[in-house]
Amino acid sequence: MGFIEILGLIAGICTSSAIIPQIITTIKRKKAKDVSVFMFVVLSTGNSLWIYYGVEKSDMPIIATNILALSLNVVMIVLKYNYRKAKS
Amino acid sequence: MGFIEILGLIAGICTSSAIIPQIITTIKRKKAKDVSVFMFVVLSTGNSLWIYYGVEKSDMPIIATNILALSLNVVMIVLKYNYRKAKS
Repeated sequence: MGFIEILGLIAGICTSSAIIPQIITTIKRKKAKDVSVFMFVVLSTGNSLWIYYGVEKSDMPIIATNILALSLNVVMIVLKYNYRKAKS
Repeated sequence: MGFIEILGLIAGICTSSAIIPQIITTIKRKKAKDVSVFMFVVLSTGNSLWIYYGVEKSDMPIIATNILALSLNVVMIVLKYNYRKAKS
């Protein structure tokens, strides 16, 4: 794996893991009122398309990091749904 | 521009513009308490690295959409800072 692939993985880890503080904040506060579920649905759609794009271009950094991002975004959607249910 | 490049642009527009609902919510509520500024700094770092990665790989969808994402993330950081200053 060359320097550029490593750089792509670091970039992808940044853009994917950036959601983790938001997940932690949501779990701590047991509240997700300010969090827009539409945003995470659109993000997950984008991640899925990027995975397809990465496979077509055999671009490992794009594939790996968007699989990570997709999983984290799905976690956020589940949390948002959970805390909305918990309130009602 | 081939099908795959168009797909990459759509993917990038999804992952970049997903932040727009969060920006609108923040402007409407004039509040960004639940929004983690650390997340947007990490996202912006990732976008910058992806732009470098895209340039090295001459991958237009990656370059174009991460420039869009970087601008939107910077807007979010400015809003977060504005509404924090407005409260103090």
